[in-house]
Amino acid sequence: MREHFEAMEQVAANFVPLSPISFLNRAEDVHGHREAYVYGATRLTWADVGQRVRRITAGLLSRGIGRGDTVAVICPNIPVLAELHFAVPMAGAVLNAINTRLEAETVAYILSHGDAKLVIVDAEFTPLVERAFEINGTKIPLLEIRDAEEGFEGAGSYETLLDADPLEGPMPLPEDEWQACCLNYTSGTSGRPKGVVYHHRGAYLMAMGTAAGWQMAHYPKYLSVVPMFHCNGWGHPWMMPIVGGTTVFTRNPAPDRIIRAFVEEKVTHFGGAPIILQMLADSPDKPAEPFDPPINAFTAGAPPPPAILEKMGSMGLNVEQVYGLTETYGHITQCLWQDDWGALASGAQAEKQSYQGIAMPMVEETRVIDRETGKDVPRDGATQGEIVIRGNTVMKGYYKNPEATAEAFENGWFWSGDGAVMHPNGYIQIKDRLKDVIISGGENISSVEVEGVLYKHPDVQAAAVVAKADDKWGEVPCACVELREGAAEDAAGIMAFCREHLAGFKTPKAVVFGELPKTSTGKIQKFVLRDRIKEQS
Amino acid sequence: MREHFEAMEQVAANFVPLSPISFLNRAEDVHGHREAYVYGATRLTWADVGQRVRRITAGLLSRGIGRGDTVAVICPNIPVLAELHFAVPMAGAVLNAINTRLEAETVAYILSHGDAKLVIVDAEFTPLVERAFEINGTKIPLLEIRDAEEGFEGAGSYETLLDADPLEGPMPLPEDEWQACCLNYTSGTSGRPKGVVYHHRGAYLMAMGTAAGWQMAHYPKYLSVVPMFHCNGWGHPWMMPIVGGTTVFTRNPAPDRIIRAFVEEKVTHFGGAPIILQMLADSPDKPAEPFDPPINAFTAGAPPPPAILEKMGSMGLNVEQVYGLTETYGHITQCLWQDDWGALASGAQAEKQSYQGIAMPMVEETRVIDRETGKDVPRDGATQGEIVIRGNTVMKGYYKNPEATAEAFENGWFWSGDGAVMHPNGYIQIKDRLKDVIISGGENISSVEVEGVLYKHPDVQAAAVVAKADDKWGEVPCACVELREGAAEDAAGIMAFCREHLAGFKTPKAVVFGELPKTSTGKIQKFVLRDRIKEQS
Repeated sequence: MREHFEAMEQVAANFVPLSPISFLNRAEDVHGHREAYVYGATRLTWADVGQRVRRITAGLLSRGIGRGDTVAVICPNIPVLAELHFAVPMAGAVLNAINTRLEAETVAYILSHGDAKLVIVDAEFTPLVERAFEINGTKIPLLEIRDAEEGFEGAGSYETLLDADPLEGPMPLPEDEWQACCLNYTSGTSGRPKGVVYHHRGAYLMAMGTAAGWQMAHYPKYLSVVPMFHCNGWGHPWMMPIVGGTTVFTRNPAPDRIIRAFVEEKVTHFGGAPIILQMLADSPDKPAEPFDPPINAFTAGAPPPPAILEKMGSMGLNVEQVYGLTETYGHITQCLWQDDWGALASGAQAEKQSYQGIAMPMVEETRVIDRETGKDVPRDGATQGEIVIRGNTVMKGYYKNPEATAEAFENGWFWSGDGAVMHPNGYIQIKDRLKDVIISGGENISSVEVEGVLYKHPDVQAAAVVAKADDKWGEVPCACVELREGAAEDAAGIMAFCREHLAGFKTPKAVVFGELPKTSTGKIQKFVLRDRIKEQS
Repeated sequence: MREHFEAMEQVAANFVPLSPISFLNRAEDVHGHREAYVYGATRLTWADVGQRVRRITAGLLSRGIGRGDTVAVICPNIPVLAELHFAVPMAGAVLNAINTRLEAETVAYILSHGDAKLVIVDAEFTPLVERAFEINGTKIPLLEIRDAEEGFEGAGSYETLLDADPLEGPMPLPEDEWQACCLNYTSGTSGRPKGVVYHHRGAYLMAMGTAAGWQMAHYPKYLSVVPMFHCNGWGHPWMMPIVGGTTVFTRNPAPDRIIRAFVEEKVTHFGGAPIILQMLADSPDKPAEPFDPPINAFTAGAPPPPAILEKMGSMGLNVEQVYGLTETYGHITQCLWQDDWGALASGAQAEKQSYQGIAMPMVEETRVIDRETGKDVPRDGATQGEIVIRGNTVMKGYYKNPEATAEAFENGWFWSGDGAVMHPNGYIQIKDRLKDVIISGGENISSVEVEGVLYKHPDVQAAAVVAKADDKWGEVPCACVELREGAAEDAAGIMAFCREHLAGFKTPKAVVFGELPKTSTGKIQKFVLRDRIKEQS
């Protein structure tokens, strides 16, 4: 009888807020003797990580960091950034891992817009943060990470956090699982990055659902390649303690370092953009024999080209494509291998593997919808619609941007901005990017941002930036420029100008001059420009 | 800044109530072509199961079943009971799977106490339900399952549920994940069974956490042996759709049927009480060669004896012990194998494998506490305390029994009633059952219930029922009886009297006569009786 069933309340014994902190709390206990983080000479067990996190959290609390405070971190993939994925949320605060490749202007914007109360920075990037402080005209407290492994010594003030007495007993959980735990800035369709907010519930389910969807056996050796400033490395810092895994760090994803880690640390899993796979395939360091057992590679950002899949196969790397966005905590679909693909010719097999795939277990629904009619496109592999997503691993919203949040969540879906078709087997395949984003070497570039810089150049009348296919990077930005009367065509000069104001990966790698094609209402027709560039190359 | 982070609300795109229904909704789509249920000639894909459940739910709704209504089901492990694990909760209702081995009196009590609004019964058990109706003096609507595979035809009225038009679109989820989805009666310490209530959130996390903790690869062939009226078969009906698994049914767990299923259906996983393992080891049907690859067996209810472990190993069965209670949705610890156990002598290995183990990933904490001091016992493998549990897979409470609920949840823990020690490696081992329960062949027996019957016998002055070790069943109930003056010692007569009022498995298998040892306050000292019985046997 409903009244009796609903009379039973949540109590401490039967209700615990979902949070990835619980996974560390458990791993400290049940996997305590196993290696958690390996980085050069550094080898920390889960018990060690638990102890460090208990101290660091206490240190943060003692510095006045608490619920809803933003802690910005600029740091490559080293153990410190992984442990901060627990310590910052455990203090009730919000981890804002910032892309280390960004220009000082954008870092300044993120620090300011994100209301950072503390910055933790790897000594290599201290100059970047200092420039950002200058731009903002304000300073906030800063702690510097010493990476002795790589000679980035700095002040090492981060280590003072470890002076605190460790928190004892069960690790503190958020009061509410809907509480924010991370803030990840994405370049979107507008020139200014948007702050995507994750909550504890989503981070918990992302980790648990990935363990199930990826069929994780216990004790993997996971190589940390996906930058943790991208979707928190797809949530792996939180998944590893569930399965008692070891994370191997190399600070930077140079192919020789990756291959050395494969061999020396017996890596079983890693994730990375197709550019990483490409670099591995081309590396002179790759071993003569394929890896046995094979290494599982998850790749995202673009479908792996058939040539790469073949090369990976012969190296002993099993590649599975995954798809997702910053707004979905990373991957929400996976191109799950089906037994009957084994019998296909290699071309047909590569075609199947180029699909973005099916919903992962923690995702409620991914569909391809015709935005006009609101209906599913037919499963014909041809009719295009937009990928929409619904589930508990969709962001809380954009920080301080209720308009963009409402727009992204129209009609009960998160709208991905990716044009796709649905195949008869239920696999999604992206056909076009509806949003104006260029993906270069796994990094998203907002064309609008680059155009903003171009428009500042005195010779530029009008500008449009589109993706140009590139063998190495997948795509690179290409500037299409309409010059002011009398101005000379100086591609090198325009690129140098952009380089002054933009991070290297955002700078156009080519400039095309000429009148820009426009609609009757004056809107630049980018698809015409893309076709033009395709023909020229 | 806290106010900004907390301004973001839950909307349809980013918040979905946790429910195992989501797993079926996804499996229908992404694993639709794979076999879900196999039973004799019956072979249903996940798409078929989805369609059936959409019709059955509609059929239930059309019969007035809705939120918070109890649907009682008396049925062995056949596909119908598995599909009802989705259809009943999808109607917003509560599935009450009743132990088919119970006597009519207890079934009558459960139907009445549980407020069943509809009974669904396998034709084999229709006479049992009719007796229960007689005892209660009331009838409720009844639908009869036809099991043509086994010749239990009956009226087959269950199939009329399938006449309804199937629900379309995404499968309906509960409005609130805290809503009840199942009601499972347990014999506890008191003579009357208690109704343990599960909620959707817990069922979701049980299934997801088990997939991660048991390292489930995709597409397992799971043999359904654990009765679904015990902890909903430990939640496996809900876990299988996550991993695209096939569940193989045999209706009853006879060893020849199990072994045939192992061979013919290439079973990869199953769960069962140690009695099942014992029967397999003794079966004349077992194949000469060990299973290769080995079959994964999860066992619960009692530690598997070393002799059984050895026999299982030589049959090609990997046995892992798990531990849990009806109140914890089934297993909450697992005796996770550690690499270094491989080097131990077989006796030492069996000793390790007899531990109840460590917390599963979805469990917040399991500890062993001294009830007096409220403190953890030392990790010395010797000091005894009580196992306590905290987490989202702990019951909502006991149905219509707030007193027992409050008692079970004292001081923020669920108190298991199991006395245990904690080993230096963090593994829990049960040493004594603090509650007065006898576990016989995987079934819990309340000694108080059996004593209640004994006290009705005209010759009995006082009675106490304790567990007696048994090679086949693990334990059997043994009646210790103090006779009235002048009464004759008639063990057979007393056992026959019990058999009239109790299910077969609850009937004492031995009667011991003599004065009962009592404390100064007159309480019977069961530990003295247990020792006495041990000495005699």
